[in-house]
Amino acid sequence: MTKIPSGSRGGELELLRAIRLRAGKRTNAGLRVGIGDDCALIRLRGTEELAVTTDLSIAGRHFRLDWHPPESVGHRTLARGLSDLAAMGARPVAAFLSLGVPGELAAGGRSWPDGFLRGFFALAEAYETPLAGGDLAESPVALADIVLTGAVPKGNALLRSGARAGDLLYVTGMLGGAAAGLAKLAELAGMEEGRPLAIPSRDSAILAPHLYPQPRVRQGLALQRRSLATAAIDVSDGISTDLGHLCEESGVGAIVEREALPIAPAASLVQALHGGEDYELLFTARASVRVPGTIAGVAVTRIGRMTKRSSRGPAVMLSEGGRLEPLEPRGWEHFSGSGLNIQR
Amino acid sequence: MTKIPSGSRGGELELLRAIRLRAGKRTNAGLRVGIGDDCALIRLRGTEELAVTTDLSIAGRHFRLDWHPPESVGHRTLARGLSDLAAMGARPVAAFLSLGVPGELAAGGRSWPDGFLRGFFALAEAYETPLAGGDLAESPVALADIVLTGAVPKGNALLRSGARAGDLLYVTGMLGGAAAGLAKLAELAGMEEGRPLAIPSRDSAILAPHLYPQPRVRQGLALQRRSLATAAIDVSDGISTDLGHLCEESGVGAIVEREALPIAPAASLVQALHGGEDYELLFTARASVRVPGTIAGVAVTRIGRMTKRSSRGPAVMLSEGGRLEPLEPRGWEHFSGSGLNIQR
Repeated sequence: MTKIPSGSRGGELELLRAIRLRAGKRTNAGLRVGIGDDCALIRLRGTEELAVTTDLSIAGRHFRLDWHPPESVGHRTLARGLSDLAAMGARPVAAFLSLGVPGELAAGGRSWPDGFLRGFFALAEAYETPLAGGDLAESPVALADIVLTGAVPKGNALLRSGARAGDLLYVTGMLGGAAAGLAKLAELAGMEEGRPLAIPSRDSAILAPHLYPQPRVRQGLALQRRSLATAAIDVSDGISTDLGHLCEESGVGAIVEREALPIAPAASLVQALHGGEDYELLFTARASVRVPGTIAGVAVTRIGRMTKRSSRGPAVMLSEGGRLEPLEPRGWEHFSGSGLNIQR
Repeated sequence: MTKIPSGSRGGELELLRAIRLRAGKRTNAGLRVGIGDDCALIRLRGTEELAVTTDLSIAGRHFRLDWHPPESVGHRTLARGLSDLAAMGARPVAAFLSLGVPGELAAGGRSWPDGFLRGFFALAEAYETPLAGGDLAESPVALADIVLTGAVPKGNALLRSGARAGDLLYVTGMLGGAAAGLAKLAELAGMEEGRPLAIPSRDSAILAPHLYPQPRVRQGLALQRRSLATAAIDVSDGISTDLGHLCEESGVGAIVEREALPIAPAASLVQALHGGEDYELLFTARASVRVPGTIAGVAVTRIGRMTKRSSRGPAVMLSEGGRLEPLEPRGWEHFSGSGLNIQR
């Protein structure tokens, strides 16, 4: 925020200078005043409104210092926020980052914050998202709170609440890849037993969906601009959980077709249904609307349909070989049960 | 953020319900969609732009669990953000809160989050600021990151950069009261030696400026609406530091008159100059402008004037009995040196 503190606080001051230098005095169509005053100032077109989202990531809970390279932590922090904007069909305007860094990670040539910022700014530049402010503090635990702001034409944001019975259900990309990557990361970490984790290059492809997920900003924008979707949500907790949210806000039910699911090559069905952090977009469209098979280079798959909500019974059902069974939301619980409790 | 997580996470889920219940589905002139979607949506009047600020507070650094009642921590968290809006002359639109809570503070009938939320929402209601989203996570350390958004007429925000040589320098309220309150808190805590701190009622007046500072939202709005100020900043790090920021952004110097300073009854000169967290507004106005002695019930005092910036030497000088001496920015350092290193 702009109110990035600036007393004489040694290491913090140095880190602040590095952040300010990287953030620059950049502005864009939307950000008028960035770092350097009490607040940033955002000016939208008269036809637009602003989407705001915030996500807190804490070491030990959302990432592990001994598992995740700092570049991945910076990337994932921003990706979480950008994915929320994507799910609203909003154009990124500005990011705000609050960073808590343990003294030992910044002292004595340790470059954790440098790595974090490298990952953060690489993704920020790819999505033309300037850093407009934030805060910095020494902290007993590494943590990052991200705020994203985005612009969307008034009344045209993709909400969770617009789905109707009869709408078809779609998802971008593949499901379960992030959970499969996390499982591989845990396996590698188990072999290293607490030593800093060196990632073999042969594993980088399977780890990428977890370490460097791609937010579907362009796809969300396309859905919004072409008015294709009736409702949307991003897959952060697994489709079993996130589809439940969409059903709840829309007052409908859903049937997911097992055979239609685009399961990532390395992933299991359970990971595809309940694994979180894929950051794909789950959306609905009228049955009469032609949804393209690819949007901005990413495949779009029809995976089911929306139904009337019965007053009893679960909202979301899984159809397999013609048989229907309840699809309980257990994205987070499942991974907690198997010990991978950094999953959100 | 609306993306407040909602798997089955026991205590967290209960706390989320409490927050959502208190936040309600409230909207206002500005907030169109609050909690319940991937992002909140803010819609401004076509004549307005949006001010955004974020502030991170961490236990042990910005507050102490054994010194500060949880109500005070909630109040101070929001006050920091509201004060940034005040310094821009912005009308509060919505707040977003990311809260990290150690398990032991929420378990077994411990009601730290309840107290935090009581303090937070009491101040939020006083300034008609709805909670529009946020995030929640169990954390090894108690922490709160606050985001405030506010509306201000386009081009009319109070910036740090508008002061000119010849402008007069003003401050709202009294200075040093928060630092004096913090010193008293430290004294009481020293007597209690780690036992939970019971605050004697005779000390509540001296502690109030530190525990429950009042952000100058109405005063900032009045300055903006009446176009009285050329530049403004809030006193978060002490006027020696904050006036330095204003001078730097405006490219001017300043002379503070020792005899004119409105020093809080319990405070010393050092606390008034270098003590932070008073959350008063420091602002400049043209010498030809009549600045009222009271704005929205709070006294306004002229404490100096802006000068040309000399290329060498300090920007800020203190005038005492006709003698000029440099006023070095040492708000944070001073309190750090005396052991009160929770001061920001």
